[in-house]
Amino acid sequence: MLTIYHVPRTRSIRVIWLCEELNLPYQVESISFAPEYRASPEWRKMNPVGKVPVLTDGDLTMFESGAMVQYILDRYADGRLQPVAGTPEHAIYLQWSWFAEATFARPLGEIVAHRRAFPKDQEKPDIVAEMQARSTVCLTAIDKVLADKEYITGEFSAADVMLGYTVMLTEMLAPADNCPNAMAYWERLKQRKACQIAIGYGL
Amino acid sequence: MLTIYHVPRTRSIRVIWLCEELNLPYQVESISFAPEYRASPEWRKMNPVGKVPVLTDGDLTMFESGAMVQYILDRYADGRLQPVAGTPEHAIYLQWSWFAEATFARPLGEIVAHRRAFPKDQEKPDIVAEMQARSTVCLTAIDKVLADKEYITGEFSAADVMLGYTVMLTEMLAPADNCPNAMAYWERLKQRKACQIAIGYGL
Repeated sequence: MLTIYHVPRTRSIRVIWLCEELNLPYQVESISFAPEYRASPEWRKMNPVGKVPVLTDGDLTMFESGAMVQYILDRYADGRLQPVAGTPEHAIYLQWSWFAEATFARPLGEIVAHRRAFPKDQEKPDIVAEMQARSTVCLTAIDKVLADKEYITGEFSAADVMLGYTVMLTEMLAPADNCPNAMAYWERLKQRKACQIAIGYGL
Repeated sequence: MLTIYHVPRTRSIRVIWLCEELNLPYQVESISFAPEYRASPEWRKMNPVGKVPVLTDGDLTMFESGAMVQYILDRYADGRLQPVAGTPEHAIYLQWSWFAEATFARPLGEIVAHRRAFPKDQEKPDIVAEMQARSTVCLTAIDKVLADKEYITGEFSAADVMLGYTVMLTEMLAPADNCPNAMAYWERLKQRKACQIAIGYGL
């Protein structure tokens, strides 16, 4: 049985969302996001750098939401929600999945990290502004792609699960005007029952 | 033919390294890393946010080095350098591949981004120190795993190509003592002809 170690608003949303889309059985362990818990030997045994989420599946324990999404697809999805591996279509699916986390979520995650590391009166507004500007470049890039597409690769795929969570972070941390296609995309994703369940889990 | 758009010291090293390990034919286009070029319409057509590298393969144009590595493996490697998809072994291979870029390279990339955004006299040492501390947590995590392993998943795989580049960044941006296993790992990787060719390309 897939067990998802979950904290609301974090990347575990992607994993719950994917399981719901695929109609897979899974269970959720809600854990504390307190820095003390994430630094505890108990949690560091699950993730050596203290991040969330973690996924277990029998004897397997793994971290990194992007890796979990790919593992679940390859093991349980029977070809659903990704193109066939090794095709140009799969390359573009991979591209947006990686972009979602490695490029687009980076400045957003850094805003969170900055605010965690520095108390409010030591927060550096120019640092945060620079990170927000980089996230807006990413949002603008997907806005252009989404001008004539419902989903980032055309049809709905797991790349939208990866990217949807990042757009949700944008809404919270670096809202941008002038990206109507990206915002319509996010509204479209939020209409999906699986997305709603994932976002609402434990709130 | 695979064409790798390359700048020395950047993530295109991973793609050249992988092609060399797999003995695949490829060609390299050396491009300018100047901000003006990366902001130009010409380059933004290749990567909408101006990053390096880009890979082309016939009609396919893609960005994100992690996605390129997976595409090349799936299309051309005939099972080499990754476990079989959908297995627990592949899950762990994916985990370290994603960790290399999405978690470990993040604070390192942010040091570069910070120094690019703020001239030397406006650089914030406490910001850089915080990012270096996070990178050291990651280096310490792999150091522990590498205590009884030659490579991150045991046998050499493409996850080492992903992670090796990140350890190279650590050496440049956030050197840490007390991680002898990680440093011995990096020395081991640098013994590989494919790694040497990739690191040296265009220098």
